[in-house]
Amino acid sequence: MSLKLGGNILVTGSNRGIGLELVKQLAEKTGQDTHIYACCREPEGASAKELRELSTQHAGKITLIKLDTSDEASISAAVQAVSRQIGAGGLNLLINNAAINKPAAPAPLSVTGKKDMMDVYETNVVGPFLLAKVFLQLLQTAAESENDRGGDMSCRRSAIINISTLISSIEKCPETFTAAPLYPYRISKAGLNMLTRCQAENFKGHNILVTAIHPGWVRTDMGGEMAPLNTHDSVLGMLGVMSSLSSKDSGMLVDWEGNRIPW
Amino acid sequence: MSLKLGGNILVTGSNRGIGLELVKQLAEKTGQDTHIYACCREPEGASAKELRELSTQHAGKITLIKLDTSDEASISAAVQAVSRQIGAGGLNLLINNAAINKPAAPAPLSVTGKKDMMDVYETNVVGPFLLAKVFLQLLQTAAESENDRGGDMSCRRSAIINISTLISSIEKCPETFTAAPLYPYRISKAGLNMLTRCQAENFKGHNILVTAIHPGWVRTDMGGEMAPLNTHDSVLGMLGVMSSLSSKDSGMLVDWEGNRIPW
Repeated sequence: MSLKLGGNILVTGSNRGIGLELVKQLAEKTGQDTHIYACCREPEGASAKELRELSTQHAGKITLIKLDTSDEASISAAVQAVSRQIGAGGLNLLINNAAINKPAAPAPLSVTGKKDMMDVYETNVVGPFLLAKVFLQLLQTAAESENDRGGDMSCRRSAIINISTLISSIEKCPETFTAAPLYPYRISKAGLNMLTRCQAENFKGHNILVTAIHPGWVRTDMGGEMAPLNTHDSVLGMLGVMSSLSSKDSGMLVDWEGNRIPW
Repeated sequence: MSLKLGGNILVTGSNRGIGLELVKQLAEKTGQDTHIYACCREPEGASAKELRELSTQHAGKITLIKLDTSDEASISAAVQAVSRQIGAGGLNLLINNAAINKPAAPAPLSVTGKKDMMDVYETNVVGPFLLAKVFLQLLQTAAESENDRGGDMSCRRSAIINISTLISSIEKCPETFTAAPLYPYRISKAGLNMLTRCQAENFKGHNILVTAIHPGWVRTDMGGEMAPLNTHDSVLGMLGVMSSLSSKDSGMLVDWEGNRIPW
């Protein structure tokens, strides 16, 4: 499959799970004009071994960037590192994938508290909020490049993809709550959906597309062993969806098959 | 007007604006079985002068409680103070009204940052989250009292009202964003809506009603001078709505006139 994706792409939380698979398939399925900035907290650590191997396999196509989205100093350093390398084309696609879940497993209200609520919000909402702010100039540069001026919005031109979840849907909460109470996570992802829609309004004048995508329930550290989808199929679906997004999809929440999910 | 509200009622952020007016009208319009726990950060301070005067006018009906919803120690102390006084009836109605907005006026993305995002979330979402947790036992006690057992849910029996806003609506964001960008506030209130719906699911087995209410655009310190509604009319409307809420409204967002607002 050839994807209508390319240029400069940044992925957060890229050392495992969905993030790692996004980098892998993007490296495999995009052309030689693509460069992937693969961000994670410890690119030199044991947890990023597979990512480093992937980078070696696709020599020159992947740059590892140290980034902890809960740390403003780390965000600043990452922007500087990317800016130095990225050149005149700007940033075409920012994929906010990094996220945490606390407590780690579905748990009743009594075992979660303020620290879980604040930590999960910081990584899942404030991180993507700050990344969009600090990369906005590079996203605008990409949107205004000679090739794209006058065309429709797209993930090839300039876009932010916020990885959300079905259980971010307030509307669908009665269907999903009992199986996965997860107050801090659900609330953070509803917040991420509002961020997505605000950004879509805010950045539409710049021709930057902003869409939230639910990857499906995927067998990852976070999704657990019971999940029906593997990371390969989820990411294959999501990249296909990203390839096809246009201005009508900006400010929406869709799943890995492209179906709209209500707020 | 006589309201179908009464028993033990707790209001946060009650020293000014909508909170103060809620305490005033509740004191005037409810019967002698009603006791109001009026919470604010500095009940002894200059900012609570009007609330203290109101308490004097309605001697024995209002207890001032020191509460900073962003401070866990303050929440614990407030629960202890209320529990000592409240008696066997439990808490019938918890109104989470305290909220902040940063930056204080509508402002572009460039002038807001991580501290605003975290502070607003802490007060507007984590505060109500924690208050529901710590008052859950007292709310259950009220829901199970001899008089109410077997009846429908209501704000007279046992309920949490989370004061939300029209601009919490992700669906309506394209209509409202330009006039009021307010990223931290909007995202926090979308989170509050998810909290409301999770609580409604979580607590329905206890017959505790949970509804989010938009007070209208009101002339308060937060709403500004241009707002079309005054606090009197907003609160009059909201108390009428609260009087009429039943199980079908639990987990919903309604305005001060009782109209549903989409998520």
